[in-house]
Amino acid sequence: MRGQTGSRSNGIMRKRPIGIFDSGLGGLTVLKEIRKILPGEDIIYFGDTARVPYGAKSRDTVIKFSVQNADFLVGLGVKMIVAACNTSSSFSLPTLRRRYNIPVVGVIGPGAKGAAGATRKLKVGVIGTKATISSDIYKKEIKKINPKIDVIGASCPLFVPLVEEGWLNTDVTEVIARRYLAPLKQKGIDSIVLGCTHYPLLKPVISRIFGKNVSVIDSASQTAKAVKKILDNNGISNNSGQARCRFYVSDEPELFRKIGSRFLGSRINSVKRVEVG
Amino acid sequence: MRGQTGSRSNGIMRKRPIGIFDSGLGGLTVLKEIRKILPGEDIIYFGDTARVPYGAKSRDTVIKFSVQNADFLVGLGVKMIVAACNTSSSFSLPTLRRRYNIPVVGVIGPGAKGAAGATRKLKVGVIGTKATISSDIYKKEIKKINPKIDVIGASCPLFVPLVEEGWLNTDVTEVIARRYLAPLKQKGIDSIVLGCTHYPLLKPVISRIFGKNVSVIDSASQTAKAVKKILDNNGISNNSGQARCRFYVSDEPELFRKIGSRFLGSRINSVKRVEVG
Repeated sequence: MRGQTGSRSNGIMRKRPIGIFDSGLGGLTVLKEIRKILPGEDIIYFGDTARVPYGAKSRDTVIKFSVQNADFLVGLGVKMIVAACNTSSSFSLPTLRRRYNIPVVGVIGPGAKGAAGATRKLKVGVIGTKATISSDIYKKEIKKINPKIDVIGASCPLFVPLVEEGWLNTDVTEVIARRYLAPLKQKGIDSIVLGCTHYPLLKPVISRIFGKNVSVIDSASQTAKAVKKILDNNGISNNSGQARCRFYVSDEPELFRKIGSRFLGSRINSVKRVEVG
Repeated sequence: MRGQTGSRSNGIMRKRPIGIFDSGLGGLTVLKEIRKILPGEDIIYFGDTARVPYGAKSRDTVIKFSVQNADFLVGLGVKMIVAACNTSSSFSLPTLRRRYNIPVVGVIGPGAKGAAGATRKLKVGVIGTKATISSDIYKKEIKKINPKIDVIGASCPLFVPLVEEGWLNTDVTEVIARRYLAPLKQKGIDSIVLGCTHYPLLKPVISRIFGKNVSVIDSASQTAKAVKKILDNNGISNNSGQARCRFYVSDEPELFRKIGSRFLGSRINSVKRVEVG
């Protein structure tokens, strides 16, 4: 068991940063939402850009990488770990929770909760990477909340490269999105979870395809709410910090900085490269 | 200095397998061409599927991974190393050549030679990943052969995910390809190098877009010819082997086997998982 133990006072814990990791850039959409509703918190972000993406990799490889990433954050003294990657959240949460004595939050639970709360026809769609969809994790989590909800998944492997290419509002993206989303539309869902942290950047296209009667659930903002609740419940939230964000990556910082600013909607200044694994 | 030294006889060397590595699946297009013209050779293929893709990663990360992959093959006693990945070939050949005492071949030199031989208007296009194109390696290699040749590069980041999705002949692929290739068409190239081992699967679309007056140079078949020549020149080719192919990957073998068969055009039976790095 690693990380902060319960023996220290909450006062010391409060001032510690929140640790966020992702396979690469996508988790920055989660960081952005956390900063919005927790403006006093310090944050450390780690993006595993040397081994990105995780979405088509196997369960045990994803768990191994996730543990290495979280170990790095715990080594920097974080008070909480956010696995801001759907693929990692699908597989690694039980392992991470056994390993550390600090709260560990993923993006799946909050997204599932948001979708279960929004559907009226009890028909929810979930889109994500191949690994996330084939794990059926959203289905399991949503059915835990309400077993009557029908959950229909669709993997969209081209969405991540489209976002990283910056083709957010092109005809090509619309055609690809229509193709991926057609089966969900046909099934008559009224709520859809964006089950990948890259997808919020495609929200305008996705919303346009489904029309206004379908709620588009962005797991980034749902996760931020869950983070706030856990910090509050544990008495370790920090309203008076300097809101410093530190960024670490496992590959070239410059590559991360360029595309990362698009995800974050603001300029990233300093990014450090570290070795993990 | 590792690998086979010159002190053993060529007779023993001859019977050793050829080692091929790639970041993932793409190198199978090179393996396929090698098998065609060297049907007596045993081959060991390693795909670094846990860390795939290399195309958007930095120079030193790609070199580090390439050395680990090649060390694995050398440990299995190969007589030659083929870096069947354009990104790896762009960055790691000098390091690999210093490290081992057996021939090391990449895919860039052979592709460049093919293009330089095919162009009449002295205008060559090169397409590849971001890393390959921004390294300008094809330009350098082609200009070494003939400095008068104009080389125009274009990176096509969506081609790899399109191929892995199996969308080889769809409207979407055609639209994306037209968009990426338009600047090359406009410049009036008469020869284009497919500078990524995934791209031969898109050859029909690419050929259609350029028409019959543009030669499409597939570096896989060029590389196979280079491999044959080096083996012959060193007196270590094997015409009487059992043509056994062994496959190793760093992630889940099943994922590799499924898509790999599409690349190879024949069924892959046994794939073993190994740890590298």
